[in-house]
Amino acid sequence: MSARRLRLGMVGGGEGAFIGAVHRIAARLDDRYDLVAGAFSSNPEVATRSGDALHVAADRCYTRWEVMAEREAARDDGIDVVAIVTPNHLHVPVARAFLAKGIHVICDKPLGLNLAEGHILAEDVARSGCHFVLTHNYSALPMVREAQRRVAAGELGEIRSIEVTYLQGWLNERAELGDNKQARWRADPLRAGAGAAGDIGTHAWQLAAFVTGMSPEAVRGELLTRVAGRQLDDEVFAEMRYASGARGRLWASQVATGHENDLRLHIVGTRASLTFCQQQPNQLTLLPHDAPAFTVTRNGHGMSAAVAQQCRTPAGHPEGYLEGFAQIYREAADLIQGKPMPLLPGIVDGIAGMQFIARLRESSAQGGSWVTWA
Amino acid sequence: MSARRLRLGMVGGGEGAFIGAVHRIAARLDDRYDLVAGAFSSNPEVATRSGDALHVAADRCYTRWEVMAEREAARDDGIDVVAIVTPNHLHVPVARAFLAKGIHVICDKPLGLNLAEGHILAEDVARSGCHFVLTHNYSALPMVREAQRRVAAGELGEIRSIEVTYLQGWLNERAELGDNKQARWRADPLRAGAGAAGDIGTHAWQLAAFVTGMSPEAVRGELLTRVAGRQLDDEVFAEMRYASGARGRLWASQVATGHENDLRLHIVGTRASLTFCQQQPNQLTLLPHDAPAFTVTRNGHGMSAAVAQQCRTPAGHPEGYLEGFAQIYREAADLIQGKPMPLLPGIVDGIAGMQFIARLRESSAQGGSWVTWA
Amino acid sequence: MSARRLRLGMVGGGEGAFIGAVHRIAARLDDRYDLVAGAFSSNPEVATRSGDALHVAADRCYTRWEVMAEREAARDDGIDVVAIVTPNHLHVPVARAFLAKGIHVICDKPLGLNLAEGHILAEDVARSGCHFVLTHNYSALPMVREAQRRVAAGELGEIRSIEVTYLQGWLNERAELGDNKQARWRADPLRAGAGAAGDIGTHAWQLAAFVTGMSPEAVRGELLTRVAGRQLDDEVFAEMRYASGARGRLWASQVATGHENDLRLHIVGTRASLTFCQQQPNQLTLLPHDAPAFTVTRNGHGMSAAVAQQCRTPAGHPEGYLEGFAQIYREAADLIQGKPMPLLPGIVDGIAGMQFIARLRESSAQGGSWVTWA
Amino acid sequence: MSARRLRLGMVGGGEGAFIGAVHRIAARLDDRYDLVAGAFSSNPEVATRSGDALHVAADRCYTRWEVMAEREAARDDGIDVVAIVTPNHLHVPVARAFLAKGIHVICDKPLGLNLAEGHILAEDVARSGCHFVLTHNYSALPMVREAQRRVAAGELGEIRSIEVTYLQGWLNERAELGDNKQARWRADPLRAGAGAAGDIGTHAWQLAAFVTGMSPEAVRGELLTRVAGRQLDDEVFAEMRYASGARGRLWASQVATGHENDLRLHIVGTRASLTFCQQQPNQLTLLPHDAPAFTVTRNGHGMSAAVAQQCRTPAGHPEGYLEGFAQIYREAADLIQGKPMPLLPGIVDGIAGMQFIARLRESSAQGGSWVTWA
Repeated sequence: MSARRLRLGMVGGGEGAFIGAVHRIAARLDDRYDLVAGAFSSNPEVATRSGDALHVAADRCYTRWEVMAEREAARDDGIDVVAIVTPNHLHVPVARAFLAKGIHVICDKPLGLNLAEGHILAEDVARSGCHFVLTHNYSALPMVREAQRRVAAGELGEIRSIEVTYLQGWLNERAELGDNKQARWRADPLRAGAGAAGDIGTHAWQLAAFVTGMSPEAVRGELLTRVAGRQLDDEVFAEMRYASGARGRLWASQVATGHENDLRLHIVGTRASLTFCQQQPNQLTLLPHDAPAFTVTRNGHGMSAAVAQQCRTPAGHPEGYLEGFAQIYREAADLIQGKPMPLLPGIVDGIAGMQFIARLRESSAQGGSWVTWA
Repeated sequence: MSARRLRLGMVGGGEGAFIGAVHRIAARLDDRYDLVAGAFSSNPEVATRSGDALHVAADRCYTRWEVMAEREAARDDGIDVVAIVTPNHLHVPVARAFLAKGIHVICDKPLGLNLAEGHILAEDVARSGCHFVLTHNYSALPMVREAQRRVAAGELGEIRSIEVTYLQGWLNERAELGDNKQARWRADPLRAGAGAAGDIGTHAWQLAAFVTGMSPEAVRGELLTRVAGRQLDDEVFAEMRYASGARGRLWASQVATGHENDLRLHIVGTRASLTFCQQQPNQLTLLPHDAPAFTVTRNGHGMSAAVAQQCRTPAGHPEGYLEGFAQIYREAADLIQGKPMPLLPGIVDGIAGMQFIARLRESSAQGGSWVTWA
Repeated sequence: MSARRLRLGMVGGGEGAFIGAVHRIAARLDDRYDLVAGAFSSNPEVATRSGDALHVAADRCYTRWEVMAEREAARDDGIDVVAIVTPNHLHVPVARAFLAKGIHVICDKPLGLNLAEGHILAEDVARSGCHFVLTHNYSALPMVREAQRRVAAGELGEIRSIEVTYLQGWLNERAELGDNKQARWRADPLRAGAGAAGDIGTHAWQLAAFVTGMSPEAVRGELLTRVAGRQLDDEVFAEMRYASGARGRLWASQVATGHENDLRLHIVGTRASLTFCQQQPNQLTLLPHDAPAFTVTRNGHGMSAAVAQQCRTPAGHPEGYLEGFAQIYREAADLIQGKPMPLLPGIVDGIAGMQFIARLRESSAQGGSWVTWA
Repeated sequence: MSARRLRLGMVGGGEGAFIGAVHRIAARLDDRYDLVAGAFSSNPEVATRSGDALHVAADRCYTRWEVMAEREAARDDGIDVVAIVTPNHLHVPVARAFLAKGIHVICDKPLGLNLAEGHILAEDVARSGCHFVLTHNYSALPMVREAQRRVAAGELGEIRSIEVTYLQGWLNERAELGDNKQARWRADPLRAGAGAAGDIGTHAWQLAAFVTGMSPEAVRGELLTRVAGRQLDDEVFAEMRYASGARGRLWASQVATGHENDLRLHIVGTRASLTFCQQQPNQLTLLPHDAPAFTVTRNGHGMSAAVAQQCRTPAGHPEGYLEGFAQIYREAADLIQGKPMPLLPGIVDGIAGMQFIARLRESSAQGGSWVTWA
């Protein structure tokens, strides 16, 4: 634990942004990073003001990330790792610029605008020898890790069905027409690439894949735009078929009226089922075939010792969204400092997310028919 | 209320049967019926013993329902109405026999073995001038009625999505190989017609249709047999498309490990969403677009006066499955005694259930493609 | 099951009454009784109209219960058992009249107006050789029976604390000034004897005593009248000390704003704790010292076979208030027909309820000091 | 936000401690502090190792807090504020030493060993002109703040009853005999002062007082030691009487088998009731007299704008224990930097906690009789 703090830079995340602040809290929580540089905004005034508020030295507040990559790489005390929290269209270009300089990358999801871009990035990651971490934060929640372990250990038997839903209602009206900066870029095809499919559909997809370790052989579904005038999808329905005979269903919506951030996973196996709701992140419910249902709590009885290690508080002292996000940062620090971190989401998850969107678009274009996953 | 009790006969429901006992409790609960005749079993000994236990006079305990229809019709004090609680293959033949004698019918669901049979019965019902009631009991639960009223009143706005799931785990093993009489006939194609699709899929379908008042323009999906050796489907996935643009999803499974009788309805509208879980039948949760979620309780504040009338106990004194079932019987008595009962499920619901199975089989046979509903 | 139906009479329960209808449904549910006589009201017109609605022969509709006891006892086909559903002040006089004629009694709770009256009745019961059943219905709920069995089997270890709360809000305003017949007599000292203490306090007390099998050595507490102008208590706080060192707390209120019928029991033992909420009557939650909490469901896995027998529906098909009440009637029938029914509440529970009120009044009068229970 | 970070020191919180790590995370979360000095342990080796792990310069790692106070006060870049996370017996001495040097204090609860000590500290705080913050973290949770605002705004009407329970099961066995450092000092009268009463009883007390703004005129109750051999109380029962006629009950237990950190508040008012459970910290349920119950969610619809400001994540992205704790640190920073922070717990809450324990001991010694609060 006395390893030095990593020097962190950030691209994006200036005033008024949402996810940048989350990444910064996540980076601070376990004290493994110092934020020392940033291209928080392309607007010089905003960049300076943001940097000042964040206690970043003025000479390390950049307005152009290309320059930041260049200069930080040239410094003796340059950043070890960059966090990318820009709109989606910049994820890949920014990541490539820093990887090219031998700087590790922690990137917000989704990976980028499309699958082609993802493949290019994957090559760069491989070539760079650097680490690339994608913040699919939900997969780092303790009870999700607990679910993954129990599935892997065979506690559910053979998996029959995977059901994942991710429901939000905040785009029920055209929030993108107002002042909500985030809503604006998320509704713009050039900057977001995809709508609900990219923003939350990839989270749902990754969560199901992470817990089950399964990849489908075929998918089908549709991308829908429910609110008139909107250019991107705001709701997604998908189905999956797995080689084992298992079936999957995914529903992600940002127009699910009254839902806040309602991400749920339900897996049915031959020996037991499980349910997890992100809004109750400290519990995981198991439904065995032949015994009463029980609820494992975070850091409580029955939790795997391996997962309990990641908890910062005892049972009954709720952890939440930020702690899950911080776990990504903690594991990224461990990874960068030489420890294998097999559960950490990265380029492979990112590619899968892009592929999920691509396959659904193909299926959607064919009236919802099945398309081969691979 | 001082109307005379209706004279009720029953076909099926002898010793060891499940649903017959439920029908009898339902008929007794509001004291609108006297059970005075029955063909409880084709086995004379069982028929006699069952009739004796049920206080039915020996000369009105029949072994053949054809004889029962004949003789009861000939009596001055013959039955007014017959309850059919046999395996599915007998529903239509028995119903036709009694309708032909001018005797009203209360029939367990599903309607019968297939759509063709359903159409034949529909003609008979129309010709008979008698009432035909189908015990889709969940649609008579107070909070389901409350949901239906709120949807009809426009409280949800325009409906975007309908999600219905009906999960049970009891056929997770081959219960039909053991002594469970019910499991045995339900797994037999000749007696059941369909498996999960018929037994619980039609309930789920009817519930969604009842609450929304909507009928799809196309459906797709598949019938699956998950447990090796089983002849009928034990799990069903379906999707619906509605002319309005709304989408629906249905999942019914009898191999959903650890689930008991987990029927849930979730409707997303442009102004509000709602959720109902049959296992918590005294509450209905509404999620408005712009206000905190709230829970209407049975006979509690905010419940429609019209629905409150059907409650037998004050708020906080839970009603359950039997009371919902009894509501069907109470309304059937009102109907037979001359009062219009527009919410009571009948032949139309039965036909829709048969059509649901037929369309899904078509879609299943075509690899899950969309088929026109009508 | 082919035992003949018992002939049931009823005193009280005419038009506009609440609990009379509940008793009648409870009596019908398992088909063990025929309602054949009644003194439903002292108003001849109401008595006749009620009897007619209930299909009771005109010559067995009485206006005076003294006459009813006399005449029914004189008939060959006279009633076997009488259900008493009058206001509290009549419970004991009516019961005594019927017991004197050798007629069994099923009586609504509380036992009567006071402890003295209770002792007199106890003597009469003993002398009569008849059965006296008191409808503490909550103690007949399956999950309460399950709790009782688990406690008796030592699953909780030694009991440390018993917490019972029974919260209603319906007397938050002076309902007794309006048309609510029930609210009127319940607020009248001469007819009710006690307020919240009698109506719901005795239920809470009996529930705790039933599940734990424990009787305190001392109690303290206070009776409060929260709504100005009201003559009786509408809220009760009590504490109990047990010889074992265990502690108990009881809170019963009819002015607990927004609560419907919120009866909860929470028992802490050295090895496990349990919680039960009457509004979720199909589940019982156990919290072991060293394992995840689990929920036993009615007729589900882990439920005692002995308790499962009393269920009328499979797991996941909710039973509720009426089914619990009906269980009292079913067991009363068994008892009357010769089967020992050790769990059925009767005169002992009734006396304990009167004693609970008496002791609390003593404590209340002394500023809340401890008073010896016995 | 560009105010400089405060220089923070810490006393206690070396290796193996629990609450020290929580304070450090809380201090980091909003980036308002730099941890620059510490007396993490009186063991030099542990102190050095802890300081190293925490990136504290070697020359600012002290083994004696007296020395730390002296030297830090003498430095130009000395600490602005000290966090005290020692066992209870050191709270007051350490606080006094730093206050004497003009250094602000953030102190873990309870205030100290007894009321006398509390009064002495109160004088020192007043004399010092420094701020003294006590980490009653639960009162800083957003939904607790929301509850406080709604009560203050009269939404509940007049308060009738206050019910607070704080149940844990971790001392069900003699954890203090094992390696659990925390359990060891908490069970030692000389270091802890009180048991459950001090550790969690004061939290429960403060929570109720914070939300209602009410102070009782009399209290009664008892301190119990349930586990044989233990020297301090492990369970507390208390009752409160308020001048308004309101009643309160408090139950705090560390031997409530199977409970994790189950802190709940339930307030009944004449117009509405409310319930809050710390284990579900993102929701607050209101039960109005005449409308359906509803649940306000953190940062969701209906939440006060003033409280929403303290949220770090949108609705549906759960915050938990650490975020509540961090709110104390954030507000302490604001306070120290000149902004009035009226909701922040401090010396007054600390004194009240000591008084709560003192009064309960008096009552306990008198067999549980009422004692005047003031």
